[in-house]
Amino acid sequence: MGEQNVKVLGNWGSPFSRRVEMALKLKGIPYDYQEEEPYGNKSPELLKSNPVYKKIPVLIHNGKPIAESQVILEYIDQVWDGYSILPTDPYQRSLARFWAKFIDDKAMPSLWNAMWAKEDEQEKTLKEAKENLEMLEKEIEGKKFFGGENIGFVDIVANFIGFWLGTIQQVLGKEILTKETYPHLSNWAEEYVNCDIIKQNVPPKERLFTLFKLRHEAGF
Amino acid sequence: MGEQNVKVLGNWGSPFSRRVEMALKLKGIPYDYQEEEPYGNKSPELLKSNPVYKKIPVLIHNGKPIAESQVILEYIDQVWDGYSILPTDPYQRSLARFWAKFIDDKAMPSLWNAMWAKEDEQEKTLKEAKENLEMLEKEIEGKKFFGGENIGFVDIVANFIGFWLGTIQQVLGKEILTKETYPHLSNWAEEYVNCDIIKQNVPPKERLFTLFKLRHEAGF
Repeated sequence: MGEQNVKVLGNWGSPFSRRVEMALKLKGIPYDYQEEEPYGNKSPELLKSNPVYKKIPVLIHNGKPIAESQVILEYIDQVWDGYSILPTDPYQRSLARFWAKFIDDKAMPSLWNAMWAKEDEQEKTLKEAKENLEMLEKEIEGKKFFGGENIGFVDIVANFIGFWLGTIQQVLGKEILTKETYPHLSNWAEEYVNCDIIKQNVPPKERLFTLFKLRHEAGF
Repeated sequence: MGEQNVKVLGNWGSPFSRRVEMALKLKGIPYDYQEEEPYGNKSPELLKSNPVYKKIPVLIHNGKPIAESQVILEYIDQVWDGYSILPTDPYQRSLARFWAKFIDDKAMPSLWNAMWAKEDEQEKTLKEAKENLEMLEKEIEGKKFFGGENIGFVDIVANFIGFWLGTIQQVLGKEILTKETYPHLSNWAEEYVNCDIIKQNVPPKERLFTLFKLRHEAGF
């Protein structure tokens, strides 16, 4: 057993589950991985370790399960030394938490809705998504990453915007985030996916493309 | 200025804003307070210090603003010694964050919806609220507070359930949380509002009653 008994219950295509893997890789912590089917049967281990939501990701550390990706990231950062995910300064730390929460509560859902909106919801959802991207554009301006010189908490949480969104845009032929519309955020996304640790921890592009294409064709 | 220049932008009736005051009081930190009208004109200070949401509560510490009540609680706990709001053990800390998030994402909205639901939404909203209370009932069983022997992060975040809910139940003549339905949670609520620090930091009952009564009569 020992201190390094670490397991992730995840799904290859989930940005939430990839956040956990990114954090573990940044810390250099080896882990076991168990693939879970998001819409199919859930493993007994998943049901037991996240009885409230029955959802991935779950981190199991020495038999103790933790759910909710941001909660897991905070845990990883506290438990393992080395690479700092959250800033140590309390004020900077609170700003990181604020923006991470903004991404989960506002930016991600609005972008998702805008991308998959039916005709009559198009305008409203797009307006909201753009307002949220505008906020992030201001926040990233003048910085390499949200975390400063290095990938931090907000960058990990923003992985959907840095990688998934681009693939969805390609599948649907819609463009929200481009070099023209949000140049700083767009540069960030480019830097982001070119970081080794990120590049190795996003889903294979082709496979994600196919997943979203099937979803699109099925009329979701 | 100095280290203790602390100001809260809040609203007397808001459980979110009261969370911040509870935490400061538990830490013994004196602060200035500025009342904000939630539905009326927002002060220039609020607009400037929370440009993303333009909402209370905001904590301003030595001129630096922080928004979002849970983010503020984490900040207060890191910056000031003394009373521990979050557990220091990383696993217990992650559980506290999990339940606090559950309360904000699930329990509070579902209780609010169940209480104010129109006839046709009654059954569905009530079912959801009960499922969430069931989870909290299991979590609090065998403990005095969510934080153990003392008020902690989850107890502060759960202030709506500990105090506000009872008043809304009285106004509407609906009962969800009672000694019969959720005995452990109900005992917790009783212990909770009898703690000095909590008792002094919830809104005056009569005033809150009147607020919700007006809301009810206005047909919201």
